Amino acid sequence: MQFVASEHPHRRLNPLNGQWVLVCPHRTQRPWSGQQEKAQKNELPEFDPTNPLCPGVTRPNGIQTPEYESTYVFENDFPALVEIVPVPPNSDDPLFQIAPARGNCRVMCFHPKSNLTLPTMSAAEIAVVIDEWISQFNELSAKYAWVQIFENKGATMGCSNPHPHCQIWSCSFLPTEPQLKQERLRAYYATNERPMLADYVERELQRQERIVIENRDWVVVVPFWATWPFETMLISRNNNKRINDLTTEQRYNLALTMKELTTKYDNLFHCSFPYSMGWHGAPTGPEHAHASSAHWTLHAIYYPPLLRSASVRKFMVGFELLAMAQRDLTPEQAAQRLREVDGKCHYLQK
Amino acid sequence: MQFVASEHPHRRLNPLNGQWVLVCPHRTQRPWSGQQEKAQKNELPEFDPTNPLCPGVTRPNGIQTPEYESTYVFENDFPALVEIVPVPPNSDDPLFQIAPARGNCRVMCFHPKSNLTLPTMSAAEIAVVIDEWISQFNELSAKYAWVQIFENKGATMGCSNPHPHCQIWSCSFLPTEPQLKQERLRAYYATNERPMLADYVERELQRQERIVIENRDWVVVVPFWATWPFETMLISRNNNKRINDLTTEQRYNLALTMKELTTKYDNLFHCSFPYSMGWHGAPTGPEHAHASSAHWTLHAIYYPPLLRSASVRKFMVGFELLAMAQRDLTPEQAAQRLREVDGKCHYLQK
Ligand SMILES: O=P(O)(O)O[C@H]1O[C@H](CO)[C@@H](O)[C@H](O)[C@H]1O
Ligand SMILES: O=P(O)(O)O[C@H]1O[C@H](CO)[C@@H](O)[C@H](O)[C@H]1O
Repeated sequence: MQFVASEHPHRRLNPLNGQWVLVCPHRTQRPWSGQQEKAQKNELPEFDPTNPLCPGVTRPNGIQTPEYESTYVFENDFPALVEIVPVPPNSDDPLFQIAPARGNCRVMCFHPKSNLTLPTMSAAEIAVVIDEWISQFNELSAKYAWVQIFENKGATMGCSNPHPHCQIWSCSFLPTEPQLKQERLRAYYATNERPMLADYVERELQRQERIVIENRDWVVVVPFWATWPFETMLISRNNNKRINDLTTEQRYNLALTMKELTTKYDNLFHCSFPYSMGWHGAPTGPEHAHASSAHWTLHAIYYPPLLRSASVRKFMVGFELLAMAQRDLTPEQAAQRLREVDGKCHYLQK
Repeated sequence: MQFVASEHPHRRLNPLNGQWVLVCPHRTQRPWSGQQEKAQKNELPEFDPTNPLCPGVTRPNGIQTPEYESTYVFENDFPALVEIVPVPPNSDDPLFQIAPARGNCRVMCFHPKSNLTLPTMSAAEIAVVIDEWISQFNELSAKYAWVQIFENKGATMGCSNPHPHCQIWSCSFLPTEPQLKQERLRAYYATNERPMLADYVERELQRQERIVIENRDWVVVVPFWATWPFETMLISRNNNKRINDLTTEQRYNLALTMKELTTKYDNLFHCSFPYSMGWHGAPTGPEHAHASSAHWTLHAIYYPPLLRSASVRKFMVGFELLAMAQRDLTPEQAAQRLREVDGKCHYLQK
């Protein structure tokens, strides 16, 4: 029998973290009497006087959110990381290792209106979000080794407030994922004298099997090693290293690309498509300021949980937690569906 | 200022996989208007004629589930892994690495009644489950490198059928987590000439800060590096390497320990506490039959998602997916709450 990737279980290697993913095509046909997600429709009011992220509303700590008109950034009232914190004592027991963690957590509202999301905002409004990301990154990257910009969208993805917003957590240390990536990208560069993701984009563009969107500055691809059902990477084609080295044009093209991708996501299951997304680029802070970043390529990653419909998600549980990542359709199947779905006109506007 | 672990953000190392966990005490106080879980009450009927896991019901593929009286094991109708599958072609491109995956997926019903769970079954009935695990393991471990016994409990944990059951996925290869553990345990043994988890249990028993249950054969501890809010490890105190080397007494004590732990879990938030749990021990199959397993200690891991109540869970999203594991209360706080909650009398019986 001939091996056919869309039929036969197999493993694929994620070269960014060195881990294998188990690919099990056709598992999506099994019966489902498990949890049903509530489809997220945009039934929110434009303004909710009880929502602290809305302009003019007073937050629980007594501070009033200003009457902002585009984006608005403030320090998280319940920060996971804080700047001034005592250093834990050293331990020489390998089983009880503890290390310092300093940082900073900010919340960034995308828009004054609660009932918008990135795909229903205009490209010009998204460009303002990108500009704000960059000015935050400029400030925070001077001080911190890692600035994690990320958006949790939708209740299914643990978003605790429905107003369109993202978060920025800055760390005095390199967290696990960027640390692994740093090592793997560096090793690839040492051997190939090319950034791994530049090579990867080139080969994906030749193969055209997993490309979702391509334009002059950006490529969106379902990675060969994708874990989440409709996971994508949005990769710079211009050898950008960090979000703050984008030109004005690259930024505007990024806004268009993000709008197209998130419109496709919403149109796929006719719902406000939940996901976690975030940016990865070369590490920062005094520690990395003088290190080479030649091995890096700026990219965003989208981790959306939905599997079969607006109400059936993929659970990363049991086998996935205890053994390894596992997916139920091939990356090629996911890419084809994302390629075919409309990326120009949002289903709410039809 | 003096460092206080229950107040100040810090990182802790998981020596079993080499990854750091960010510990952010006091984050549980933030307001929550995100997703609410449905509390899982045992309102199921004893028998549901439409549920293929119930005795006597015909499955979608036409096979009838027998009138079983204790446990019942069958091949998954939608297996992620199958025994006979073509081998993918070799690739020498490091960015497109693909590898074979053979295996086997079984479903194991714990009990004929749909409205029971492990904590509401008797210890004698749990002992029957353990015996069945062992006989399955005996058969499958002869052939496969890794036999993953795991239970997804509750819709919140992706369980697609509410009848009490677990799954057994066997693999022709060592998956990511066991592979990492294998390497780390081996390295520790090479340096210390003791199994890492034997040393760990000894020190936890001295410290008594994170112990939840201890008896002659077993210890339940919230690991120093726990990721999930009320994560626990159930560790053998008898230098067991695999589940099939337990004595009859150790098995019966295990049934009592599992009943006590899961009763505590249910009593914590007065609900049928969701979790994923599974067993880890020395690898198996022809490949590992002659390798030393001296560095291993048999243990189970429980990953329960609930954070603050029956309806508010911890989401592993955004920062956690993109950067690193993060928890919102200390392992010591979780252990204290689990220690204090009743482990003998289930809240439904009060
Ligand atoms: O096999 P089930 O119970 O239908 O499915 C459940 O467990 C599997 C193994 O952990 C996961 O891959 C699925 O995402 C989950 O829904
Ligand atoms: O900060 P939020 O939005 O309240 O919380 C959300 O994002 C955080 C960062 O990814 C996670 O730690 C939380 O589990 C999630 O609910």
